[in-house]
Amino acid sequence: MRINDNYLKLKAGYLFPEIARRVNAFGDANPDANIIKLGIGDVTEPLPDAIIQAMHKAVDDQSNRDTFKGYGPEQGYDFLREKIAENDFQARGCQVDADEIFVSDGSKCDTANVLDILGPGNKIAVTDPVYPVYVDTNVMAGNGGSAEDKDEYSGFVYLRATAENNFTPDLPSEPVDVIYLCYPNNPTGAVATKETLTKWVQFAKENGSLILFDAAYEAFITDPAIPHSIYEIDGARDVAMEFRSFSKNAGFTGTRCGFVVVPKSLTGKAADGSRVELHKLWNRRHCTKFNGASYIIQRGAEAAYSPEGKQQIRSLVDFYMTNAKIISEALTEQGIQVFGGTNAPYIWLKTPSGMSSWDFFDHLLNTCHVVGTPGSGFGLSGEGYFRLSAFNSRENVEEAMNRMREKAMA
Amino acid sequence: MRINDNYLKLKAGYLFPEIARRVNAFGDANPDANIIKLGIGDVTEPLPDAIIQAMHKAVDDQSNRDTFKGYGPEQGYDFLREKIAENDFQARGCQVDADEIFVSDGSKCDTANVLDILGPGNKIAVTDPVYPVYVDTNVMAGNGGSAEDKDEYSGFVYLRATAENNFTPDLPSEPVDVIYLCYPNNPTGAVATKETLTKWVQFAKENGSLILFDAAYEAFITDPAIPHSIYEIDGARDVAMEFRSFSKNAGFTGTRCGFVVVPKSLTGKAADGSRVELHKLWNRRHCTKFNGASYIIQRGAEAAYSPEGKQQIRSLVDFYMTNAKIISEALTEQGIQVFGGTNAPYIWLKTPSGMSSWDFFDHLLNTCHVVGTPGSGFGLSGEGYFRLSAFNSRENVEEAMNRMREKAMA
Repeated sequence: MRINDNYLKLKAGYLFPEIARRVNAFGDANPDANIIKLGIGDVTEPLPDAIIQAMHKAVDDQSNRDTFKGYGPEQGYDFLREKIAENDFQARGCQVDADEIFVSDGSKCDTANVLDILGPGNKIAVTDPVYPVYVDTNVMAGNGGSAEDKDEYSGFVYLRATAENNFTPDLPSEPVDVIYLCYPNNPTGAVATKETLTKWVQFAKENGSLILFDAAYEAFITDPAIPHSIYEIDGARDVAMEFRSFSKNAGFTGTRCGFVVVPKSLTGKAADGSRVELHKLWNRRHCTKFNGASYIIQRGAEAAYSPEGKQQIRSLVDFYMTNAKIISEALTEQGIQVFGGTNAPYIWLKTPSGMSSWDFFDHLLNTCHVVGTPGSGFGLSGEGYFRLSAFNSRENVEEAMNRMREKAMA
Repeated sequence: MRINDNYLKLKAGYLFPEIARRVNAFGDANPDANIIKLGIGDVTEPLPDAIIQAMHKAVDDQSNRDTFKGYGPEQGYDFLREKIAENDFQARGCQVDADEIFVSDGSKCDTANVLDILGPGNKIAVTDPVYPVYVDTNVMAGNGGSAEDKDEYSGFVYLRATAENNFTPDLPSEPVDVIYLCYPNNPTGAVATKETLTKWVQFAKENGSLILFDAAYEAFITDPAIPHSIYEIDGARDVAMEFRSFSKNAGFTGTRCGFVVVPKSLTGKAADGSRVELHKLWNRRHCTKFNGASYIIQRGAEAAYSPEGKQQIRSLVDFYMTNAKIISEALTEQGIQVFGGTNAPYIWLKTPSGMSSWDFFDHLLNTCHVVGTPGSGFGLSGEGYFRLSAFNSRENVEEAMNRMREKAMA
């Protein structure tokens, strides 16, 4: 039996295990240190009460024969798909129907599994820096080419995003088949204006490309001019799938629910040149390889759209965004150059004194007992940058900033 | 952008949508008919109380900052992996460690996703009849060859299971790389003796094959001589992965939890001829393409192993198995030849008067308003057979049998 050899081309490790290794080693050597983690983008505050109540009710539904739910629709329950279509899209003037929404157990799975329905030989464009899952899953699927000396794969077209271009990469200078875009961006916190997204949609139309638009952080947008969905752009229904998550807005990182929008007008090319609807392919995949998200969790997600749920989520998002403001201001005060943090829960900072990303990681851990994420872990263009997450308690965020002030980081 | 053309080779439909279509059409035409569904293998009874209580507690954990759980380990929480290793394996003398268990949101996903870590070009053996997911996922991955006239794919080695060989297929007459085995079997209800499984393990060792052992129905085994796990067989750790589910024993079809065992001693061949541990590959896949099963659901699954949980699950399984006995006896009484139903929740019957599977489906629906599953939907060797499921209330099962008696089905 032969294995999938593409797995052997993957570079040593996912970023976060290496961070965990260094943090654990530091913790073992300094058992009294109160380490504050602003690294991995994991929420810390409890679920909104409306969601808690809805899940209790759903658990009770499972305890009674008359309300018990066995296999549900693989695509998700209508009660949830309709709420999503209405609130996340139609309310913003986007033409997205409930039956174009596929509910899942999380957005990481969706952004990874989408490659199942795409053919081999597609040219893949990713931003640099980038959420590592896009890259690793393409390497696993054989789209990565080889890993070169300089820690990049030869198979990808990299779209560089640095302070020099305001973290807004140029369009590719060559045709590409699939483009991963994440806005608000993880890790840089940058957003895409309507003009930027319009350029991408036009490029995709002209080149027959598919845009995989990851909007996991849309709830953190505060600027009313910034689109929350790519479907706010004319023509996007013909070129883009959009990925959404309940993880960061409603706090579902451990509860698990997400969804993907696959417009019925979206097609790809078959070997014989004919056009095939991606909606049909994804539906077939979803029904064959997935059995629907948990009923209990879908009821929880539904409650995110109740009046109380919306208000409680708004408070949660505001809370984290105040953290982001505190971090941004404290760093700026110290002369550190910061980006993001106003429409995203991530602060992307330029490391002081030209330190490398990992040197700054070690320095911050050793002197302040604060954990962040080295920018270079997200790609070559992330070198010299560092990500701090706003996901923590107010107390911890303030304490972390006090420590950085005292140690005069800049 | 090119699609995965293998999807276009899939035959028209998954079996169950066609059943749903015919049942809906009948229901529309006969709105007063009380249709009893013994078709799809979906449970009907509520979750055991121990599990309900555990999930309520876990929901409460998510409402409090101190007990809140964000991202968990992708492989599953230790509290669950340890219970599984201890109760499902070590208690039966199987050497399976907690860190060889990967918890997921369901066994359908696992049996489908396993192909990600296997290379192209593997020769796949499936039984006939078979759970359609094994076949369809392999076609999607390009292992199906072409669909021939006679409704079979040229890429597979089919292992025929009929009354003539007591539903115990012969070993393949050619080397194969991957073998799907499901025991207790869906759809035939047949079981594998220790001798049968030993033959398979030896065959796999001799041919370098991987056995994918689906034990989703192990809880329904009543004969103490029948193995519950393939790891009861010496050497199986070197050749087999085992898939398990909480769906049918604990009633999790809509709640969603399963797991797969990947022994560390299990390897596959890389292009350069070296051996690679499947545990490492699966761990990488799981961490990159999955974000762990819901904390709330894992707490529910954990409660399946508490003393109360075990007892309540035992009652649930006994309840369904009494249904199976009622069905088997009623059909036998009418001169219908039945198989399965003693160590599995499925009764596999020979259609009376040589009717085709779909003719019997229509006949049963029209005359008795009872829904079952046509055997031919599971493969060519299922033609002339029919599956009835024991998953329903006692009242419905008795009523269905009364109707069949009255209409003198045989």
